[in-house]
Amino acid sequence: MYNLLKGKRGIITGALDQNSIAWKVAEKAHEEGATFVLTNAPIAMRMGEIKALAEKTGSQIIPADATSVEDIEKLYVEAQEILGGKIDFLLHSIGMSVNIRKNIPYAESNYDYFMKGIDVSAMSLHKMLSVAKKLDAINEGGSVVALTYMAAQRTYPFYTDMADIKAMLESIARSFGYHYGKEKKVRINTVSQSPTKTTAGTGIKGFGDFYDFADAIAPLGNADAESCADYCITLFSDLTRMVTMQNLFHDGGYSSTGVSSEVMERLAGE
Amino acid sequence: MYNLLKGKRGIITGALDQNSIAWKVAEKAHEEGATFVLTNAPIAMRMGEIKALAEKTGSQIIPADATSVEDIEKLYVEAQEILGGKIDFLLHSIGMSVNIRKNIPYAESNYDYFMKGIDVSAMSLHKMLSVAKKLDAINEGGSVVALTYMAAQRTYPFYTDMADIKAMLESIARSFGYHYGKEKKVRINTVSQSPTKTTAGTGIKGFGDFYDFADAIAPLGNADAESCADYCITLFSDLTRMVTMQNLFHDGGYSSTGVSSEVMERLAGE
Amino acid sequence: MYNLLKGKRGIITGALDQNSIAWKVAEKAHEEGATFVLTNAPIAMRMGEIKALAEKTGSQIIPADATSVEDIEKLYVEAQEILGGKIDFLLHSIGMSVNIRKNIPYAESNYDYFMKGIDVSAMSLHKMLSVAKKLDAINEGGSVVALTYMAAQRTYPFYTDMADIKAMLESIARSFGYHYGKEKKVRINTVSQSPTKTTAGTGIKGFGDFYDFADAIAPLGNADAESCADYCITLFSDLTRMVTMQNLFHDGGYSSTGVSSEVMERLAGE
Amino acid sequence: MYNLLKGKRGIITGALDQNSIAWKVAEKAHEEGATFVLTNAPIAMRMGEIKALAEKTGSQIIPADATSVEDIEKLYVEAQEILGGKIDFLLHSIGMSVNIRKNIPYAESNYDYFMKGIDVSAMSLHKMLSVAKKLDAINEGGSVVALTYMAAQRTYPFYTDMADIKAMLESIARSFGYHYGKEKKVRINTVSQSPTKTTAGTGIKGFGDFYDFADAIAPLGNADAESCADYCITLFSDLTRMVTMQNLFHDGGYSSTGVSSEVMERLAGE
Repeated sequence: MYNLLKGKRGIITGALDQNSIAWKVAEKAHEEGATFVLTNAPIAMRMGEIKALAEKTGSQIIPADATSVEDIEKLYVEAQEILGGKIDFLLHSIGMSVNIRKNIPYAESNYDYFMKGIDVSAMSLHKMLSVAKKLDAINEGGSVVALTYMAAQRTYPFYTDMADIKAMLESIARSFGYHYGKEKKVRINTVSQSPTKTTAGTGIKGFGDFYDFADAIAPLGNADAESCADYCITLFSDLTRMVTMQNLFHDGGYSSTGVSSEVMERLAGE
Repeated sequence: MYNLLKGKRGIITGALDQNSIAWKVAEKAHEEGATFVLTNAPIAMRMGEIKALAEKTGSQIIPADATSVEDIEKLYVEAQEILGGKIDFLLHSIGMSVNIRKNIPYAESNYDYFMKGIDVSAMSLHKMLSVAKKLDAINEGGSVVALTYMAAQRTYPFYTDMADIKAMLESIARSFGYHYGKEKKVRINTVSQSPTKTTAGTGIKGFGDFYDFADAIAPLGNADAESCADYCITLFSDLTRMVTMQNLFHDGGYSSTGVSSEVMERLAGE
Repeated sequence: MYNLLKGKRGIITGALDQNSIAWKVAEKAHEEGATFVLTNAPIAMRMGEIKALAEKTGSQIIPADATSVEDIEKLYVEAQEILGGKIDFLLHSIGMSVNIRKNIPYAESNYDYFMKGIDVSAMSLHKMLSVAKKLDAINEGGSVVALTYMAAQRTYPFYTDMADIKAMLESIARSFGYHYGKEKKVRINTVSQSPTKTTAGTGIKGFGDFYDFADAIAPLGNADAESCADYCITLFSDLTRMVTMQNLFHDGGYSSTGVSSEVMERLAGE
Repeated sequence: MYNLLKGKRGIITGALDQNSIAWKVAEKAHEEGATFVLTNAPIAMRMGEIKALAEKTGSQIIPADATSVEDIEKLYVEAQEILGGKIDFLLHSIGMSVNIRKNIPYAESNYDYFMKGIDVSAMSLHKMLSVAKKLDAINEGGSVVALTYMAAQRTYPFYTDMADIKAMLESIARSFGYHYGKEKKVRINTVSQSPTKTTAGTGIKGFGDFYDFADAIAPLGNADAESCADYCITLFSDLTRMVTMQNLFHDGGYSSTGVSSEVMERLAGE
């Protein structure tokens, strides 16, 4: 409630239900004075829920499949009409692995599913940026944040092909950050978030145990969806206008902790 | 001007003159509603200049040698008296290398100077945190930022022993971030800033050429002191309460850019 | 000529002509006492040239499309027959970007080409490992090396979509390294090599200028194909049996050098 | 037994007893055809034990305090006399923290002890390189390896000030690697080794529990002293002549593993 995003226009993807990080970002962005449109894949959208968010935040919903360049073009055109100008911020919160959903072990990944996961979860960022650049839909100095996870750096056995897909997502943020930065000072960062009790997260097998492990490692405990939304707000604000092409850990210190005394004690005391 | 630091109390080190990053942080923190004390080593302080900042921001000045545990104790005691409570944020902006000042090549570093540089520029952070923890002088959830430079990761020949000292500084931030985080949720981060035209920076031989090189690499250009101050404000705010033990690049994308087309063209066109 | 690979059996991909790193690896592996098969995509293979290598090293050639699981299965079956046992080492040196070949700017990447690049250059590693694991074709303690480039960490404008693809390749090496390591102590690493005057490398626009830039940054200069081959030999040997899931820079120090005095002087003297 | 170091001359520090990594390096270097001198601080040396190593490897022992420039000068002069020429490889395996020995919590580190730890464990590398460069005691293309630990990147509560000291050590390797590389193609790397059951390692409180934790995380298990010695041999050999300024993890994959299924099961099954 600082008016950090006063007058700014945005597009927020991935608000599925009130456990979604994107949902919290929408709530916070509204509180901070932004106007924005919400978008989701038609197939993933639960109209009942997202309508409540749209009403609460005075937003409109534009269904769009983020793997479809045509849908994305339509999204930008309509968003600019609705919001009355170019976009200032974009949240990419889109991830899906059929291999995870079907509990397929990593070494036996189905390649059609793998490619589908890449298209939905990583290439969608490239497409959203490519279309934005082509349409000149993002204001100079605009800010793009994509949510990611540390499996891109270190292996977590249950995260399977999504690890490799997130590594590509983070690379796309860097690569596009160079080109869009040079041309329009648009900055692009990824936020590498603690394991979060979203509907998607808790669907991963073994998530609960891992959530507890990460919570016991991180000196501040796991970061929750609400604090992640707060952090995204700072990245959308003008106060971070020179931060770009970074992968930013938002994790209570987990990423820089080798082990905690707490975990050592739990293992020693078995 | 968002009231991001309303009601927060801080200590700001290293505001030497109006080119200092710390100077800008003080101005911004004041604008954002914080109260704070300014501190500098008696030997480094130019009273005339810092007094102007103190007046402008309604601050008091407490001279303190950051290598002296006694001085630091006195600093916390007085700061809490003046500000009326525990500290919420601390800026560590202290760096000095006699080997650089005297243009001594890295391979021939003088070890007394090297150790002095460590004491002033890195150990001072440990001392300020150790005393704070002992005195319980920082509020739960408080935020500490230390300024650093990417020479801690990659070699820049002119940066000589300061590279190794900054590597230690960044490590101290991580190490102490674990302990202080566990106990009091105090978060500790380093901001790795673009080459900046401060009085200290421009004193390094070859700084001007390097400034231009970095500016030509970074897609957004070099980040200046004012944008760095803005970034520090976000890190002192409650919106980043789960970010800790991180080294955060504030550099217009420099750190993630291998080379720019601009630099390639300049070199090819020689 | 140390007999470092005496008695070891391998598969070497990507030896196109005598400028290829894989070509040098084959020569060195032969000198070090290994036997191996050579393989390439039928479409990429220049029979005349690779036959000379096969004769020189006493190897047989098995054409295989590394995007085809069937071809890879056939490759392992035949290779084991020819070599008389399971495989001890595998070199993955496969990379191709149609977007680069066609000089398509990164922001306008064609997505069919992008996906093709992923399939050929990154997913092929997953497929070669997945089939090997399924067929139990690699000996316990076997070693896999995939060649990569630092564009996976930092942006080089001319490297376009290959940067993101290499980021995925490096992640696949880590992910699979976990699973194959746990089960069979097979280790999987990527070698991040200097720009190299291979036929593929020199085909990238602006490669020559960049080669010179990197050479002027790296304290030892760019690493050439022959030294890279030597390094790969050490990674295939038993002396590195506990090194896995690493991305190893083989680049004369380039990756850890911010800037060299030489480049500073060249830019200053323009 | 490949003659990898045939004809090479070296200096090996830190061989305290047969559990030392340096001890294993000496044995392996001898097997691989090198001649070398052994050196230790007079205060740390257990003459009885190191004499056995000297006899076994045909080496002479030169006591030298690695914090003393004079002692180091004497070391190089005598080593070259004994070995009949300039040095080709150097192992730095020197680490000591009084704060750890005395079980002083990190936040309460004694600063005299901290500075002593820096001098012994990190600055000693700078001194050994500085003297070598001044005396031109290392052959062109020579290789320097310093042993380190991942606490330089991630916090391990029990490792206290040694984490920060190792961060500095790794930085010194990079910084000096630039200068010595440019001038003489001497390469300098650090090997970041698994927790190892050396006499020094096991002296750290809680080492045993942590050893087991790391062993359960690493897909290949912890790397032992002997495999580390093998790895160092490859780094001293000509086959790695273009690898420099790197921190190389030798840890069975620990550094790239977020968590293992084994650890998850142990924690879940408490």
